[in-house]
Amino acid sequence: MDKNKLTQLLNDVKEGRLDINHALHKLRTLPFENLGHTKIDNHRDLRQGIPEVVYCESKTPEQILSIMQRILESHNKVLGTRANPEKAAFIQKHISDSVYDKESRLLMVNRPEEDDAIKKTGMVMVITAGTSDIPVAEEAAKTLEFLNVKVERAFDIGVAGIHRLFDVSDKLYEADVIICIAGMEGALTSVVGGLVSCPVIGVPTSVGYGTSLQGFAPMLTMLNSCATGVAIVNIDNGFGAATVANSIIQRIQKYQ
Amino acid sequence: MDKNKLTQLLNDVKEGRLDINHALHKLRTLPFENLGHTKIDNHRDLRQGIPEVVYCESKTPEQILSIMQRILESHNKVLGTRANPEKAAFIQKHISDSVYDKESRLLMVNRPEEDDAIKKTGMVMVITAGTSDIPVAEEAAKTLEFLNVKVERAFDIGVAGIHRLFDVSDKLYEADVIICIAGMEGALTSVVGGLVSCPVIGVPTSVGYGTSLQGFAPMLTMLNSCATGVAIVNIDNGFGAATVANSIIQRIQKYQ
Amino acid sequence: MDKNKLTQLLNDVKEGRLDINHALHKLRTLPFENLGHTKIDNHRDLRQGIPEVVYCESKTPEQILSIMQRILESHNKVLGTRANPEKAAFIQKHISDSVYDKESRLLMVNRPEEDDAIKKTGMVMVITAGTSDIPVAEEAAKTLEFLNVKVERAFDIGVAGIHRLFDVSDKLYEADVIICIAGMEGALTSVVGGLVSCPVIGVPTSVGYGTSLQGFAPMLTMLNSCATGVAIVNIDNGFGAATVANSIIQRIQKYQ
Amino acid sequence: MDKNKLTQLLNDVKEGRLDINHALHKLRTLPFENLGHTKIDNHRDLRQGIPEVVYCESKTPEQILSIMQRILESHNKVLGTRANPEKAAFIQKHISDSVYDKESRLLMVNRPEEDDAIKKTGMVMVITAGTSDIPVAEEAAKTLEFLNVKVERAFDIGVAGIHRLFDVSDKLYEADVIICIAGMEGALTSVVGGLVSCPVIGVPTSVGYGTSLQGFAPMLTMLNSCATGVAIVNIDNGFGAATVANSIIQRIQKYQ
Amino acid sequence: MDKNKLTQLLNDVKEGRLDINHALHKLRTLPFENLGHTKIDNHRDLRQGIPEVVYCESKTPEQILSIMQRILESHNKVLGTRANPEKAAFIQKHISDSVYDKESRLLMVNRPEEDDAIKKTGMVMVITAGTSDIPVAEEAAKTLEFLNVKVERAFDIGVAGIHRLFDVSDKLYEADVIICIAGMEGALTSVVGGLVSCPVIGVPTSVGYGTSLQGFAPMLTMLNSCATGVAIVNIDNGFGAATVANSIIQRIQKYQ
Amino acid sequence: MDKNKLTQLLNDVKEGRLDINHALHKLRTLPFENLGHTKIDNHRDLRQGIPEVVYCESKTPEQILSIMQRILESHNKVLGTRANPEKAAFIQKHISDSVYDKESRLLMVNRPEEDDAIKKTGMVMVITAGTSDIPVAEEAAKTLEFLNVKVERAFDIGVAGIHRLFDVSDKLYEADVIICIAGMEGALTSVVGGLVSCPVIGVPTSVGYGTSLQGFAPMLTMLNSCATGVAIVNIDNGFGAATVANSIIQRIQKYQ
Amino acid sequence: MDKNKLTQLLNDVKEGRLDINHALHKLRTLPFENLGHTKIDNHRDLRQGIPEVVYCESKTPEQILSIMQRILESHNKVLGTRANPEKAAFIQKHISDSVYDKESRLLMVNRPEEDDAIKKTGMVMVITAGTSDIPVAEEAAKTLEFLNVKVERAFDIGVAGIHRLFDVSDKLYEADVIICIAGMEGALTSVVGGLVSCPVIGVPTSVGYGTSLQGFAPMLTMLNSCATGVAIVNIDNGFGAATVANSIIQRIQKYQ
Amino acid sequence: MDKNKLTQLLNDVKEGRLDINHALHKLRTLPFENLGHTKIDNHRDLRQGIPEVVYCESKTPEQILSIMQRILESHNKVLGTRANPEKAAFIQKHISDSVYDKESRLLMVNRPEEDDAIKKTGMVMVITAGTSDIPVAEEAAKTLEFLNVKVERAFDIGVAGIHRLFDVSDKLYEADVIICIAGMEGALTSVVGGLVSCPVIGVPTSVGYGTSLQGFAPMLTMLNSCATGVAIVNIDNGFGAATVANSIIQRIQKYQ
Repeated sequence: MDKNKLTQLLNDVKEGRLDINHALHKLRTLPFENLGHTKIDNHRDLRQGIPEVVYCESKTPEQILSIMQRILESHNKVLGTRANPEKAAFIQKHISDSVYDKESRLLMVNRPEEDDAIKKTGMVMVITAGTSDIPVAEEAAKTLEFLNVKVERAFDIGVAGIHRLFDVSDKLYEADVIICIAGMEGALTSVVGGLVSCPVIGVPTSVGYGTSLQGFAPMLTMLNSCATGVAIVNIDNGFGAATVANSIIQRIQKYQ
Repeated sequence: MDKNKLTQLLNDVKEGRLDINHALHKLRTLPFENLGHTKIDNHRDLRQGIPEVVYCESKTPEQILSIMQRILESHNKVLGTRANPEKAAFIQKHISDSVYDKESRLLMVNRPEEDDAIKKTGMVMVITAGTSDIPVAEEAAKTLEFLNVKVERAFDIGVAGIHRLFDVSDKLYEADVIICIAGMEGALTSVVGGLVSCPVIGVPTSVGYGTSLQGFAPMLTMLNSCATGVAIVNIDNGFGAATVANSIIQRIQKYQ
Repeated sequence: MDKNKLTQLLNDVKEGRLDINHALHKLRTLPFENLGHTKIDNHRDLRQGIPEVVYCESKTPEQILSIMQRILESHNKVLGTRANPEKAAFIQKHISDSVYDKESRLLMVNRPEEDDAIKKTGMVMVITAGTSDIPVAEEAAKTLEFLNVKVERAFDIGVAGIHRLFDVSDKLYEADVIICIAGMEGALTSVVGGLVSCPVIGVPTSVGYGTSLQGFAPMLTMLNSCATGVAIVNIDNGFGAATVANSIIQRIQKYQ
Repeated sequence: MDKNKLTQLLNDVKEGRLDINHALHKLRTLPFENLGHTKIDNHRDLRQGIPEVVYCESKTPEQILSIMQRILESHNKVLGTRANPEKAAFIQKHISDSVYDKESRLLMVNRPEEDDAIKKTGMVMVITAGTSDIPVAEEAAKTLEFLNVKVERAFDIGVAGIHRLFDVSDKLYEADVIICIAGMEGALTSVVGGLVSCPVIGVPTSVGYGTSLQGFAPMLTMLNSCATGVAIVNIDNGFGAATVANSIIQRIQKYQ
Repeated sequence: MDKNKLTQLLNDVKEGRLDINHALHKLRTLPFENLGHTKIDNHRDLRQGIPEVVYCESKTPEQILSIMQRILESHNKVLGTRANPEKAAFIQKHISDSVYDKESRLLMVNRPEEDDAIKKTGMVMVITAGTSDIPVAEEAAKTLEFLNVKVERAFDIGVAGIHRLFDVSDKLYEADVIICIAGMEGALTSVVGGLVSCPVIGVPTSVGYGTSLQGFAPMLTMLNSCATGVAIVNIDNGFGAATVANSIIQRIQKYQ
Repeated sequence: MDKNKLTQLLNDVKEGRLDINHALHKLRTLPFENLGHTKIDNHRDLRQGIPEVVYCESKTPEQILSIMQRILESHNKVLGTRANPEKAAFIQKHISDSVYDKESRLLMVNRPEEDDAIKKTGMVMVITAGTSDIPVAEEAAKTLEFLNVKVERAFDIGVAGIHRLFDVSDKLYEADVIICIAGMEGALTSVVGGLVSCPVIGVPTSVGYGTSLQGFAPMLTMLNSCATGVAIVNIDNGFGAATVANSIIQRIQKYQ
Repeated sequence: MDKNKLTQLLNDVKEGRLDINHALHKLRTLPFENLGHTKIDNHRDLRQGIPEVVYCESKTPEQILSIMQRILESHNKVLGTRANPEKAAFIQKHISDSVYDKESRLLMVNRPEEDDAIKKTGMVMVITAGTSDIPVAEEAAKTLEFLNVKVERAFDIGVAGIHRLFDVSDKLYEADVIICIAGMEGALTSVVGGLVSCPVIGVPTSVGYGTSLQGFAPMLTMLNSCATGVAIVNIDNGFGAATVANSIIQRIQKYQ
Repeated sequence: MDKNKLTQLLNDVKEGRLDINHALHKLRTLPFENLGHTKIDNHRDLRQGIPEVVYCESKTPEQILSIMQRILESHNKVLGTRANPEKAAFIQKHISDSVYDKESRLLMVNRPEEDDAIKKTGMVMVITAGTSDIPVAEEAAKTLEFLNVKVERAFDIGVAGIHRLFDVSDKLYEADVIICIAGMEGALTSVVGGLVSCPVIGVPTSVGYGTSLQGFAPMLTMLNSCATGVAIVNIDNGFGAATVANSIIQRIQKYQ
């Protein structure tokens, strides 16, 4: 549409139906943002390997279905986050190749194309302090795998038994990004941040009670980390951490 | 006084000047709390080795002096906490053997008697995550020493360089109580709590900025510690931690 | 495993298959943490009388079962906290000698060995301000009993009727540790802390409404206690208080 | 003015210059609030014995002076609260019989008339948990005395030494209202509320540090008091508590 | 019991079986609190017209029943607050003359004796800003009526239509205490406090959403009231406000 | 009634049955507020086009019905907000022409009169950052339409894809008021505020999780907007925003 | 520049040096934002009558001067907010016709042109609850006057003396926008919102202490206003309220 | 030292002075952490190019000097953060080649060695929403330059004038990491996150007032960003963001 409009304008200039001053004026007053539309949109697509992600929590099953179908018209994959089993069942009834992972609450449609294999370079390690943090960890890990990033997992290695952490230290040193997921007091991030040289993405979880403040306690712990190289995302936001890790891995791959 | 009053009453009963019903009534309506007064007071004295502690922060120099002088009439030592240099100078002008420790802000008068030597049993280890936590640590350590408890110190052993903690692990295993002082994210308490078997008293400090929330971040960290055997006191309350440690050491000594 | 690896290395040195410089290098690069593994683990076992405690709140019944079974392979007791009736029923179906206490939400397997009698030295008093605080109190008391520590209880002795507290004062003076559990305004801890000489562990509870802030009101009260010798644990954390009390009792017993 | 206007209207009606429908209309559209003006104003005067109180904290010395002078034109007393020494000095230069009490920060002009003696009925007891709470207590006590209410004081009777409270229990039982002022953990209010039958007005103070949250900790304590008959005012608001106590005393006096 | 013990002691003194020094010692070491027990208890009874109130929210039906039955052994009335319909039904099955008011969630047993008529002196006005605040208002009003205090009600007179408040101003001027109940922004308390001379007890309610913060918004409004003579109780605490009002009314009656 | 009373009084004055001083006194003591009653009430009616709005959330179906019926006696429309389907069904059974919109939770009775067409002047644009914000947006939009204000909608134009916003910029420039509804981080308001010249009413929504703090995160974002011309209402308060927009549109129409 | 670039491109098309496809591509990839630059900028200028406002609080005097001078190169007026006296003095030394208003902390340069008179249509009323709120009120009022909007002021009309508000009710009914400024409990906004039909912009102020929470108490009050037609801006943000009022007045003027 | 000890042990084994079982025991009980000491330490050194950073805020000048001198014994550079001018002056007196940057409060000693040139690969863009955020931005930028990372700056490009952001969009697309620094509402991060594909590190600043909550408002904004690829660090923590960016850049360089 925009393209047609612009082509017309340029044709008019070329063929003398529109003098340059008027063309200039038209270009200036043409809603500039429309010019940018496709470019940004494509850019988004290239960037994340996922055209759009559907945050399912406060959407109706019908809304989710309609958005997913619209995306699938032009893309080969779509990801839904925080889908409960009821919404997932509804989608699966309508999109037969959609896959639902109950633990991570991810709803995925993946119609892989030829070059969609796991990338060779870059590994993200996803670790948790406790067993209860695993659902958030799986949201991060499965999102990364959906984005064709290599993932290693190490769960339940919290600092109250520091030797459990040391048992996986070799893997920690190999990782290009570590996603460190912890509820309760969240101290794992500081200890890991003090051991490794790669970026550490902390994800506080709402695991705990009382003063854990639904995840604010570990969040504050992570933000005040005395270790360097640590940044965080929202409470329970495994997906968000995965997108940060993905953006770092992509940057590494770009330069190779 | 109470004693006189009671003696008189009993004498009156004995000698028939007061019948039992009236005596009973008098005893019942006698302010019961006065009966308990001296007992509780003595108890307090025996218990803590310090008759009273003067919280200097929101008192005038004159108030502090007057309270300290009153205590010294019947005791051989008195402790003032959170005294600033100006208040300390005022007290030192009037109580010539008072000692002021600027770092810990403690103001002490100690006129030791014969049996006031450091107790042989029981050792409290006072550790800090950072150099900036030392004033709080010294408040704890010097209060304990004032109470004749043996103290060992290890400062700046925060978890961002976990090896620093391991360097003092022998001492940690020897301690009967560990006072663990940390600002910023306060993760040290969880790691120490996971290593040792003795009680750990956490003291969050107001060291930090932004989301450290003047000490609430490390406080929440410590309260949510996934390690067992950890309890905490108020932010920056080195004195409070020392009184808890002292009460534990006294309990140990009692049974020997 | 580690042991085998090390034995092999030393044998190689002894028998000249490995020169000292290479052995040194191997030792240095050997993940140091593995050396410490067993030691720390054993230590943990000795320390708490409980090898591991399973926090059941955010685990699936299957996860709880699997962890408990793994622990029971090498230990004679295991404790689950915050288990709801559904999870407990599942476990009891699979572990026939597991015991569930609904009030405290504790799930216990205890296969006592010979020397597992209640220790003679040391008594922990568990008191509550109100009737509604009893579940938290029972979590503390039953955990201590599970750990073979002697417990005395006194419930519903809050300060609004101060005489109720005085009625149990003899017991208070006998206790080696007092666990003081209170919701609403939590003032009991300050009054008790002012009466006794032993350490007082405060446990704020989420009993109350409105400004009780799910337990933050009594928590702040306890943290600001003007009495000395008081430390606290997380809101509703009866188990945590029990572990602190246990660590103190163990320290007392160690010196006898 | 209003009066004149109304008189005129009624005269017009009486003398037939204004028919009733028009008069009705005029009365209805007359700004109703002006009718009420004097009445409310007088009412206020009668009610509190103080026509207006000047909150000095965020006013300039010139503003304070001008307001006080305007009030004194029609009244025999005026009270300024939270005046710092600089503002007080400025006022005292211009109003020679003004009195400043540094501790309570009250600035008073009192030109007593014949019937302004201290009322015989009703006594308010003002108590504090600590010495540091005295400035707030004096704001309450001196405000009440300024309003001719009889006051008794008992300071530094906090619950950490419960016998100190019992020492003044006779006075507590005599009081018609108790103003209970406490910082840190504020537990005094609950204990007093449990002992007495008269209304207890709690005033949390900002005395303390860390988790005292500038007075929010004792405020929450008081709001969650398990004792009955307790209500509170703003942090450090000794003046506010005095006005509540005064309104109760006035009500008692009204019925005599 | 105590009485017997004391009588025995005095008899022993009288008859020479116990010398005064020993008697003195026994009296001193006799748990002082027991002396006070009955006195305080009676005092409590006299004071509030209700021996004890049962806070039902976090108690089991069985606990509530047992406490109520115990109280009814020695008293003619008992009050339960925050009882849900299930708990109430259980109690009503076992205590046939118990009455449940669903709106206020009060559970009452009242076996009036001769002099239990509504007192002639003293009237408490209970007002609400909105219709949604009525349950809290009824908790206050019905508690007062249970305590034989005269109550007037005026509901839904919030400040957004200020004329609704003025419509009941005559009653407001007559009241001896006003209980002012408001959620959302809670402004009613300030306006009422500015109109009347009697004490105003504010009760913030949790009515509202978003920034009402479950009642903290109106609570803060009331605590910062620029009107004098206003004190508050906990959020939704209609019962608490009633006990404050009752204590004021009793004080008025005492002097008549 | 008031009118009758006043007429009587004026008649009495006119006919000499009441002298002017007494009349004056009567007028002064006549509850002034009643004079204002009808006027204010009418005023309210004129002002908002809606006589009263019923906040249904914490009212019983019976209360809602009774209030709506009372309003409909004298008005041709009534609006209920935050009605759940159960309450709506109850009302619809009794008020047959009531309409319920499930998405916006609005319950409407509209019996339009002749001049109730949508006003020609003034357009309010209702925009949302996400799909999940639509229920709040519809509450705003449908309330405005109920008030005969012209509305345009543009949903799901959040800043993470800034081109989506630019696509509707023409409409944004035409709007007289923009209601900007956003949860999560709420940044849309700032960007829109920086683009347009009309007033922007921000409505933070509780869409999000963790640190969105049930809408406080976008609320703080909007309050700190670096763009000018932005004001906000309570979280999720689409209705409130509509009333602000309506008051602006009415002001515009008034001057035409 | 952009213009030149575009002209060149169009000339190239016109003269056949660039075919349409290439031109199209160039236009699409041309940073779209630059096209929009001047337009938006002009738009901003037209919209607010102020090209840019300098927030002085966290800028150095040198930064403020440099920004102001740059703006004055192309505009006839500039406004600085939150300038302290030191910064103001520095600016006045360098910009001789700059004017500083100490109370509102506004720093203004106004070099009026012919049509800069106060607009005839539209009046904004600026009211405050207390005297202490005046600085914020003056920031709002003087900003509006700087923008050539007619302002009326009424200060110190808080609800504790509701008649003071009624005294200015005529003016309130005339206003097109009311800016309602209040600290402490902020109830004025609700009462005013209930009286008038025009939009009301609330500005909470940080006047108060303790639970006023530096302005959060009145902010919450205003956000929860039960009156309709009320929106708010940031605490103490008189300037922000003025820009909202200005945008409304401009909208009114646009349609005339 | 450790090395000597180990060498001795191995020699003893080799030469038969120590049998393998004893050696094993010695190795096991040898404080394992010491083995790891140097390794971790070296690792730290390699990783960050800075052996240790001195957080100057709560340290005395003497402490800072002593730590810096100790570090410089074994390293060629040291960085101090949050140094005020007084502390900086003290250090500069004693370490003559130390450099102090007042704006960023960085205190640097850099004695570059041969290969310390700015790395060719990798560029970090540091952007701010406002002029007031520049000090935090300079802390980030200068820390990166100190670590030999290439930096581009773009300041004052906040979203209220979205075109300012678009003017630097080319640079944004080139960056490998973007550090996005914003106070007030912090919306810039979301918009940038929506435009670019590289990781975005948000740094909320304490610029603002009232509801900016000393930086919590922009922090919450950033944590709830609806854009992907965004993580954050502590408020005002420019240094922390630099260490995250540095760790990413190092990872990119590692793979080249």
